[in-house]
Amino acid sequence: MTYQLSEGIEILEQTPRTLKSFLGQLSDPWVSNNEGGNSWSPYDIVGHLIHGEKTDWIPRIQIILNDSENKIFTSFDRFAQFENSRGKTLTQLLDEFEDLRIKNLNILRQQNISNAQLQRKGTHPELGEVSLSQLLACWVTHDLAHIAQISRVMAKQYKDEVGPWAAYIPILKK
Amino acid sequence: MTYQLSEGIEILEQTPRTLKSFLGQLSDPWVSNNEGGNSWSPYDIVGHLIHGEKTDWIPRIQIILNDSENKIFTSFDRFAQFENSRGKTLTQLLDEFEDLRIKNLNILRQQNISNAQLQRKGTHPELGEVSLSQLLACWVTHDLAHIAQISRVMAKQYKDEVGPWAAYIPILKK
Repeated sequence: MTYQLSEGIEILEQTPRTLKSFLGQLSDPWVSNNEGGNSWSPYDIVGHLIHGEKTDWIPRIQIILNDSENKIFTSFDRFAQFENSRGKTLTQLLDEFEDLRIKNLNILRQQNISNAQLQRKGTHPELGEVSLSQLLACWVTHDLAHIAQISRVMAKQYKDEVGPWAAYIPILKK
Repeated sequence: MTYQLSEGIEILEQTPRTLKSFLGQLSDPWVSNNEGGNSWSPYDIVGHLIHGEKTDWIPRIQIILNDSENKIFTSFDRFAQFENSRGKTLTQLLDEFEDLRIKNLNILRQQNISNAQLQRKGTHPELGEVSLSQLLACWVTHDLAHIAQISRVMAKQYKDEVGPWAAYIPILKK
């Protein structure tokens, strides 16, 4: 698929309600357990998605579209959720993510981004020059990658419980 | 986590509504595209989940719990969905899956499975002896693995669209 705003927005719109369906009714071990060590739990991942809504996607879109000559993005803090989520329930985080996403999609739509603007560039602090189209496609793909991660983290809780079937479920080995 | 009926049912209950949230409002390319070759699209995967509800999980549970001496499971047809889904919309498949899952969870609950019964055995045609507990854990893990697969299939549609960010999204390489 070639990136198109309307198709990309379809994915960005569904993520908050999908995460509520997926995680909203589960008991604590499903959402708090991780893959061991410093890996992330579903709870941590929702916090990470919130931090992206607050500090990453829209600010970077605005850096690309504004008139300033400085097109360098601020680095994204991949560990901010451990501080920001402290004391909050998963239900609170899921609501916060939904509110931020709705607000950010309204901002995105108000930009009325043209095809020409999709080719405008910004500078990622590590990756170098990237286009607005690539940033918007990355926002979509980032949601999907984290839904896949949440599914994998939960599947792995039963790694030893499925016995010989583990041979048929490649995700358990990742 | 050690397999427990109530925690397992939490996952089995959410899958139909999560898939409706995830896929129900997407335009056709998201749900019809696959990873290339003979790989499966999200549409194919929902058909596969339906086939499992019809022919796999409950019949195997009943083989383990019934009084017959023959405990050998029937092989699961991993390609039945290509015939069974023909002519159906994704919305029809999502509704069919939800109806079957609700019905099957009612059957599961009516069995009032005891901890002793969880240790009873059946014979998988390829894997050999498996316990009811392993079968039930596999049902849960199978749902989660296919939600992860659906997310990956859709993420990969933008594999070339994210430009240099592909380096940060390992799922795109799978």
